[in-house]
Amino acid sequence: MSILIKNATILTQNQKRKQLYGDIYIDHHVIQEISQQSLSIEAEYVIDASQYLAIPGLINTHTHIPMTLLRGYGDDMLLHEWLEQRIWPVEAKLTQGAVQIGTDLGLLEMIASGTTCFVDMYFFEDSVAQSTIKAGLRGFLGFAFIDIGTPEYRPEELVSAGKRFISRWKNHDLIQPIIAPHSVYTCSPETLQQARDIAEKHSIMLHTHCSETRENVYDVQKQYGVRPVQHLKNLGLLHKNMLLAHCGWITKNEVQDIKKAGSSISHCPVSNMKIATGGFAPIPECLEAGVAVGLGTDGAASNNVLDMFDTMKFCALIHKNHRWDPRVLPAQTVFDCATIQAAQCLNMDKQIGSIEEGKYADIVLVDMHQPHFYPQHDHVSNLIYVARGGDVVTTIVNGQLVMHDRMIQTLDTEKILSASKTCAEELTK
Amino acid sequence: MSILIKNATILTQNQKRKQLYGDIYIDHHVIQEISQQSLSIEAEYVIDASQYLAIPGLINTHTHIPMTLLRGYGDDMLLHEWLEQRIWPVEAKLTQGAVQIGTDLGLLEMIASGTTCFVDMYFFEDSVAQSTIKAGLRGFLGFAFIDIGTPEYRPEELVSAGKRFISRWKNHDLIQPIIAPHSVYTCSPETLQQARDIAEKHSIMLHTHCSETRENVYDVQKQYGVRPVQHLKNLGLLHKNMLLAHCGWITKNEVQDIKKAGSSISHCPVSNMKIATGGFAPIPECLEAGVAVGLGTDGAASNNVLDMFDTMKFCALIHKNHRWDPRVLPAQTVFDCATIQAAQCLNMDKQIGSIEEGKYADIVLVDMHQPHFYPQHDHVSNLIYVARGGDVVTTIVNGQLVMHDRMIQTLDTEKILSASKTCAEELTK
Repeated sequence: MSILIKNATILTQNQKRKQLYGDIYIDHHVIQEISQQSLSIEAEYVIDASQYLAIPGLINTHTHIPMTLLRGYGDDMLLHEWLEQRIWPVEAKLTQGAVQIGTDLGLLEMIASGTTCFVDMYFFEDSVAQSTIKAGLRGFLGFAFIDIGTPEYRPEELVSAGKRFISRWKNHDLIQPIIAPHSVYTCSPETLQQARDIAEKHSIMLHTHCSETRENVYDVQKQYGVRPVQHLKNLGLLHKNMLLAHCGWITKNEVQDIKKAGSSISHCPVSNMKIATGGFAPIPECLEAGVAVGLGTDGAASNNVLDMFDTMKFCALIHKNHRWDPRVLPAQTVFDCATIQAAQCLNMDKQIGSIEEGKYADIVLVDMHQPHFYPQHDHVSNLIYVARGGDVVTTIVNGQLVMHDRMIQTLDTEKILSASKTCAEELTK
Repeated sequence: MSILIKNATILTQNQKRKQLYGDIYIDHHVIQEISQQSLSIEAEYVIDASQYLAIPGLINTHTHIPMTLLRGYGDDMLLHEWLEQRIWPVEAKLTQGAVQIGTDLGLLEMIASGTTCFVDMYFFEDSVAQSTIKAGLRGFLGFAFIDIGTPEYRPEELVSAGKRFISRWKNHDLIQPIIAPHSVYTCSPETLQQARDIAEKHSIMLHTHCSETRENVYDVQKQYGVRPVQHLKNLGLLHKNMLLAHCGWITKNEVQDIKKAGSSISHCPVSNMKIATGGFAPIPECLEAGVAVGLGTDGAASNNVLDMFDTMKFCALIHKNHRWDPRVLPAQTVFDCATIQAAQCLNMDKQIGSIEEGKYADIVLVDMHQPHFYPQHDHVSNLIYVARGGDVVTTIVNGQLVMHDRMIQTLDTEKILSASKTCAEELTK
């Protein structure tokens, strides 16, 4: 597919964060040319983007996409009550079919709100992979290890199933399989080491929940005598292929350890606020230390959207509030975390995360010709403090139009919405 | 104008917070009939709302609508630098024409995002009134008193001009003129007392900024020996017609004083977070004490949107975060603050704030047939944690369609967008 985007205001997110006005030509999955002169090239699709901002596709570095089925099923509850009374009973009933429906629903929402790449962690992850390929998104899909087992596999089956999952998907264009031990408090040291060995053998990423709540940190320290980051370090899991979700309760020393190891962080401010964990990853210190920081929505059950624009605004504001300083996390920094920094988290910053010639064409067009964007003093400010998912008109992933003029091209929206309702009713009755 | 809304899912926000499925008939500005049976009445407009949620129009209890012109003109700056370097120099240049353009722009955004009534405080407020009437919104428009004067009036002219403003607008259907002394630190006791006397004479509301920052509280205490709430009380301004904006730094004792006086509070969480004031009105304590609490966006310069859905989500999450308790401010409570509680703040809860027969028809239709609303476990949860301004399809105020199928009916969108850009460029060059 070849696409010519005409007359766009382009926020490149290249090293100089250059803003251009011009054309973008896409072919063979790649951004072939960016020009401030009008390009006269024939293309299958020519898009007049004179009212649009062209931005790099947003990268959601932490979610559990099948949980989109549980959006709004239990809010405003204490964490353990919510898990025990709502989430776990439904998860125990989840089938491959339900996971696929939940995934499809989440994919619709991500496409519609400008997310082109996401990091997932769940079970029936083969279904997630199949749906992701069909949808045309880029997925870093985490096969979950958890010592109590999953609805898909008994505990003793997980390691070999995980290996098969890796082998099955590791050469796919859009999918990067990853191993996702759920956390240091739900996985034994042996399980974590097995995860480490598989990841090392296949040169793939690891993804885990880390220090989300004070209670997690307390429990790990009590059991192992060290805090979670040190525990991961002791077991050899703190390295450049490790992406740590949350990190709401890490110390400045731990930031330094994470930096030395080359690991990265997925910050999920909306979920942290909604679950009321009280703590936030020290993002200013992480960025100052040179730790790559991505943003994540977490699952829709604790957010309740997969809209990265929403997460960007919350991220910008919660840290200002937390530090009593409006200069903390300016708009450009937050935009970086959702794009080029996130690509760094995934060791993919040479391939995605900015609009540059030679990179994969993961590009989103945002309609700025609406009252809430005017009078257009500052495009980056508008993206962070004003824009919301519904302002996205076109989503291009790997050079393919997955949404065009607000119409999703790759999935059957009506069929999925209807199936999600029926499925959710059955699961919760 | 008569309107028949068919097959809507209605969140009435009546005393029982009843949710219905059915029809609403509107005529002569008023909700004439709500029926769970299909109504066969002829109407000028018949709307198929089978995919829509019908909710009471949202009420924005604190904004400075002309400041929409300054959206994104200076973010991420220290408060005093932002005011001194950006806001005040531009405000000094503001003309009646610029205020009108800024107001029109803000009105477009409010209509598009489901706000039907707002409380304003600015200067050239006659222009705000004229635009509001043209747009068809309900405005509680605050004529600002401030001891340094405004671009419209010299200090010594303000009181008599304020009186004329009240007389001019006090019998208009859509406009309620109010007196808005800017704050206790920018208005002398004499000015505040004059404001009090005018409000009392005309039985109109007062609106002021109160205890927004720690510094405000400190300064007032230093100058007058008492905190701002007590200062207002001493001067006779704390009564049932006083709406206090922000209250980020009030004590539990002050909550009791506000309750006893029958005053109400406009809570502006997004602005507080963006400016990083550090404090939040103690909303749970206010509601427990029986103080009416509304929500405000504040001006677009410190938000940067006038979208009440955005403010509702921030409100729900910041208090959970602040108290480390996800049960604080559940979705229904926040929805109340944007509707029926806000109407109480304005002493208008018999007329607006819920969908009930005999009330003015201020109704908003939200398109819930979109991926991010599915699988629809809980409509109120979806409104607070999921919905955003762009999900609104139809806005009805005082029985008039001001937006229908996302097309604004009362203002010329293209003309206003274009004028706002030109005007903003001139003001900031």
